[in-house]
Amino acid sequence: MDVISENRCFGGVQGVYSHASDVTGCKMTFGAFLPAEAADGPVPVIWYLSGLTCTHANAMEKAGAQGWAAEQGVALIFPDTSPRGPGVADDEAYDLGQGAGFYVNATEAPWASHFRMWDYVADELPALVGRELAIDLERQAITGHSMGGHGALTLAMAHPGRFASVSAFAPIANPVASDWGRKQLGAYLGADEAAWGRHDASVQMLERGFDGPVLIDQGGSDQFLDLLRPEALSQAMAARRQEGVFRMQKGYDHSYFFVSSFMEDHVNFHAEALWA
Amino acid sequence: MDVISENRCFGGVQGVYSHASDVTGCKMTFGAFLPAEAADGPVPVIWYLSGLTCTHANAMEKAGAQGWAAEQGVALIFPDTSPRGPGVADDEAYDLGQGAGFYVNATEAPWASHFRMWDYVADELPALVGRELAIDLERQAITGHSMGGHGALTLAMAHPGRFASVSAFAPIANPVASDWGRKQLGAYLGADEAAWGRHDASVQMLERGFDGPVLIDQGGSDQFLDLLRPEALSQAMAARRQEGVFRMQKGYDHSYFFVSSFMEDHVNFHAEALWA
Repeated sequence: MDVISENRCFGGVQGVYSHASDVTGCKMTFGAFLPAEAADGPVPVIWYLSGLTCTHANAMEKAGAQGWAAEQGVALIFPDTSPRGPGVADDEAYDLGQGAGFYVNATEAPWASHFRMWDYVADELPALVGRELAIDLERQAITGHSMGGHGALTLAMAHPGRFASVSAFAPIANPVASDWGRKQLGAYLGADEAAWGRHDASVQMLERGFDGPVLIDQGGSDQFLDLLRPEALSQAMAARRQEGVFRMQKGYDHSYFFVSSFMEDHVNFHAEALWA
Repeated sequence: MDVISENRCFGGVQGVYSHASDVTGCKMTFGAFLPAEAADGPVPVIWYLSGLTCTHANAMEKAGAQGWAAEQGVALIFPDTSPRGPGVADDEAYDLGQGAGFYVNATEAPWASHFRMWDYVADELPALVGRELAIDLERQAITGHSMGGHGALTLAMAHPGRFASVSAFAPIANPVASDWGRKQLGAYLGADEAAWGRHDASVQMLERGFDGPVLIDQGGSDQFLDLLRPEALSQAMAARRQEGVFRMQKGYDHSYFFVSSFMEDHVNFHAEALWA
């Protein structure tokens, strides 16, 4: 693991690291915030998965999470959103290929050789940060924004017992029924829609739910409401009798000004579950 | 005044606006955060002046000030750092020309026709926001980072009675004795150093001081310590018996991870003076 940068931040350290990934077959970069308490031993962690077009840097610089994480004594990990590099397949569209991994393991050409973000975020990166940083893998929580909210919810439900809590900011909530989903799941997983359901938060919520509390924030003036389909997730949460809260936030859009406005609530929500 | 964007943020609105500037002779862009209270009438304002290479956007996106401003019911204004555009003089160096206005009125060619950031920030922009936004010009405070800390301190001391308080993050504290200053003041104001002193915070602190409280934060591991010369300002503050606090923050560097770590303190410091 190579150190790209380390900056003191709210009494802790905001680092950026890179490593050769066996899973994605390329060099991967991620951000990690460790609070001051990490100097004395492993601390709980909140994963933050980012949205379309983002790298590890967007949330690290704009979401305003470090101050709240420092107050709670928890770490933050900011993975990238896809494999990258000249040898990695890409597409001209902003919503497919590099920057748009959708947190799946691609099975179709030309994506299958590198686009394995599900395994990367679920297995390889946790093992790495558990080994290299003062992170306690027995206490994990997960959140994300937009495509990253989709990733957080689907990963959390697929790994019962791993995450104490899950939250999302304006998640892509029902990709099997949205142009933010059908295009990408078709490209990465193929035309057989039977393989798509495990990557749809609303489908998974109905089928199995999450074994802990859930917090969803959605901007009421989000310019992508038709693509996000929050109503599918809200309906599924209620139908499942899922422990959790779904909040429609009047006037907020899809930007980091929305995310940062509610970051305190999300970090505190996860900290309560992590320290329980 | 044209609206570039408006995003709901911490219960208020983060806007970006542009306008034709008579002072700089070009179109200028700035950011303005208005808290929810602004819907009911004018609110106090904190000016945030940015550093070299920055636009209005950097602090607006990375400094994490809006949440604290919302809590205190104060507005934030984020001006640009220079005139810009194809008809505006520039230099290949990052620290001269566009993005590096240094908050002076240039008198020398080729800069004099557009580079009048002193008058722009001191006069034209306050008049505009006082007219167009719910901002109470009777209650102003000012802060800034690096070159913007230099601007905040020199503007505050030159306008007694205008600002209730002034603060700075890692200001360029003594430009007449630094390569961050001698080059720019020479280019913009000419070789006669007699014209430079009013644009040096340490000189001004010794000569006249500030008629209110001062708060300075400086990272102890700032990579630019030799250029910033905080010791000159610290010495001047003590020699002047200036009301204020100078804090050397161990381990912090020059980045926005430093600025955001102490933003709560700065906003609360100004709010106390503004609401007094």
